[in-house]
Amino acid sequence: MQREAGTAPVHPSNLPVDGGRMWSDLTALASITEPDRPWTRRSFTPRFLEGRAWLERRFREAGLSTRLDAAGNLIGRREGRVPGAPAIMLGSHSDTVPSGGRFDGVAGVIAALEVARALAEAGAELDHPLEIVDFLAEEPSEYGLSCVGSRGMAGALDGGLLELTGPGGERLDAAIDRVGGDVAALGRARRDDVAAFLELHIEQGPVLEATGTDVGIVTAIVGITRLEIVFSGQAGHSGTTPMDRRQDAGVAGARAMVWLRDEARALAAAGDGYFVATVGIAEVRPGGANVVPGEMRLVVDLRGERRGTMEDFLARLGAEMARIAGEEGARVSVATLSDSLPAHCDATLRAALAASARSLGVSSLDMASGAGHDAAFLSRIAPAAMVFIPCREGRSHCPEEWTGPGQLAVGASVLLEAVRALDARLSRRDAPGGEEA
Amino acid sequence: MQREAGTAPVHPSNLPVDGGRMWSDLTALASITEPDRPWTRRSFTPRFLEGRAWLERRFREAGLSTRLDAAGNLIGRREGRVPGAPAIMLGSHSDTVPSGGRFDGVAGVIAALEVARALAEAGAELDHPLEIVDFLAEEPSEYGLSCVGSRGMAGALDGGLLELTGPGGERLDAAIDRVGGDVAALGRARRDDVAAFLELHIEQGPVLEATGTDVGIVTAIVGITRLEIVFSGQAGHSGTTPMDRRQDAGVAGARAMVWLRDEARALAAAGDGYFVATVGIAEVRPGGANVVPGEMRLVVDLRGERRGTMEDFLARLGAEMARIAGEEGARVSVATLSDSLPAHCDATLRAALAASARSLGVSSLDMASGAGHDAAFLSRIAPAAMVFIPCREGRSHCPEEWTGPGQLAVGASVLLEAVRALDARLSRRDAPGGEEA
Repeated sequence: MQREAGTAPVHPSNLPVDGGRMWSDLTALASITEPDRPWTRRSFTPRFLEGRAWLERRFREAGLSTRLDAAGNLIGRREGRVPGAPAIMLGSHSDTVPSGGRFDGVAGVIAALEVARALAEAGAELDHPLEIVDFLAEEPSEYGLSCVGSRGMAGALDGGLLELTGPGGERLDAAIDRVGGDVAALGRARRDDVAAFLELHIEQGPVLEATGTDVGIVTAIVGITRLEIVFSGQAGHSGTTPMDRRQDAGVAGARAMVWLRDEARALAAAGDGYFVATVGIAEVRPGGANVVPGEMRLVVDLRGERRGTMEDFLARLGAEMARIAGEEGARVSVATLSDSLPAHCDATLRAALAASARSLGVSSLDMASGAGHDAAFLSRIAPAAMVFIPCREGRSHCPEEWTGPGQLAVGASVLLEAVRALDARLSRRDAPGGEEA
Repeated sequence: MQREAGTAPVHPSNLPVDGGRMWSDLTALASITEPDRPWTRRSFTPRFLEGRAWLERRFREAGLSTRLDAAGNLIGRREGRVPGAPAIMLGSHSDTVPSGGRFDGVAGVIAALEVARALAEAGAELDHPLEIVDFLAEEPSEYGLSCVGSRGMAGALDGGLLELTGPGGERLDAAIDRVGGDVAALGRARRDDVAAFLELHIEQGPVLEATGTDVGIVTAIVGITRLEIVFSGQAGHSGTTPMDRRQDAGVAGARAMVWLRDEARALAAAGDGYFVATVGIAEVRPGGANVVPGEMRLVVDLRGERRGTMEDFLARLGAEMARIAGEEGARVSVATLSDSLPAHCDATLRAALAASARSLGVSSLDMASGAGHDAAFLSRIAPAAMVFIPCREGRSHCPEEWTGPGQLAVGASVLLEAVRALDARLSRRDAPGGEEA
């Protein structure tokens, strides 16, 4: 039997989780999709609620008590041995982007469920309660917001966001109530009783596969700064405007695109934390074959795991855009469309994940997450960390998104062993005279 | 009275043409426009035919006999003294682009008409017949073709072009017949009895105004090569695809845009003929803020007055696009969308225009035409040349297109004096023992 790229040389029967059961669950949940557009299960839709009902049944069959919190998160809970101990929480999300994948989010929910089942079947009691969570609406929803449920759990779903409107003019707060939340009591969704949060997720990038690594231990979830840069020159006839009399906004924009890439590549190569810069939207106006462009609009997506690096880059960017505009006889405006800070993963939790991988003979790599995740919001209220599993060719948010059953089982096993270790470690720390007392 | 930029210090009353009458005519013709979209008189439309009927009346009032040729060109003719002598032809076009200007084309038709009137009023007979022409559909029409009438007169309106279809599926040949042409007898539109063709036109560029020059004497009408360049890389998540693992087609396209401009600018500065390169269309796909571009499509418009320069540039372009694609891990395709040769203006006619300007105390500048004109097709069947007059800020094909009445009168005067000189010179040449015998 050929080994999947990036899976450890551990025999499936040696893993502490049931890979076949996980794969069967994942396939069953994936089959709950808009039939004409696989794989689509958009938050707040009937299909999403169908998936949730299926999930809740599986949670209950695993012996968990279930509830929806005020922010609309589905939570399954298994009590621990120590009364009043804070929870170890695992989770991700079951909603998808349109025509999205079967794994983004779902893999983490199914892995969390499997950890609960494996513990129950092994008769392993934990000191801490274990909670597994399907966060509401992690993907950008039709209401224009992502991470709705994890924001709610972190106390970051404030009034302005709740007034966003979606299909048919429905407000987000009404939509949350419609799927079982209770916005009037939203404060109760905010948690201060979480000892640790762990999320398993597909990498959504090419690094683990390319390096033949089984799991990634996430160091930080990048901060994202999105800019709109508009160069304004002077439109002109492509034939009658001599080269030395042009104010070509398109050339200015193209120079900006090249500079952004070159600078970001140099910064990434310098090794001072993960950094990427992307121009994904570039629009030339008026856009005629025989017209010198009078305007070019760029949308720039910057992501980094260090805020200082981001701020330095932004300062250099501003100066460079002005310089390019000046040389091209154009004007430039730079506007910030959105800005979020990086979220750092907890060192103790990262160490537990790394130790778990080692104990299983699984290779691991420290890496930043270039995508946003529910864990970024959870890190505001609890120690949080993530484990990544490989996905084929780094593809995600498309029907071809793929992770093998063995890769999922390895990731869930790392999660399970980390939960066991953390339960013991957190108990020692919390005990009178414990290590951190 | 303040002098218009680019007009000569000649008093209007000293000019051999009636500037006031020309301005009045130009304004009257401009007023025949789609009322909700000034200034629009699209070829083949009822509004165009209304303008033509007005023009034909004015032609007749000037003592010209009028006819429509088989290609749909409106021709006014004044016979010459020498039986069987070939014609001196003047003309341009009366159709406009949508929301186009009052001057592009119309200025040349009105100036030609004024030359005929001025000669008649001065009682000046010419040896050669004088023809003034409103060419059919010079602007790109709804049938996807430009210079319909001048192509027909040059014998370059072949079968394939006539099968193009426009609004309601009407074929171009049917449309030409509908406006008074006779496609079945199209061969009769081809002329071999033209001794000289002169066209006055607004520059449509900034050079005359910027240099304070009254008229431009056109050396050549550029050849135009239009290319589609498509870079194909690999789309990826903007956050999770590290800088050193990207195949960013957008960056490849941006580098191509910068190279094209830099190379064209160097070539233009080298002084070996007019040359311009423009990327007016640049499309990034899929075009999401958080997606590394997988494809970028550029439409490149290259114009030059020397074919050799164009061919050298194209060879370097092909090699450079391949080099950029290779460095960015992308593929590239370069396709030719259209290709036309430069048309050189006749030296004798250019000399006559320059001498005419000198005799009037009018400043002139040799310059290439970066835009296409009916004169390019006429140059295939007769010696041809053009005179440019300034237009404000070089703007054209827009409602703000503007040339002052004095600028138009100066240009028409240069045209008139050149016609007088050419009539005499061509007669000397054609006479037994003439200069070129």
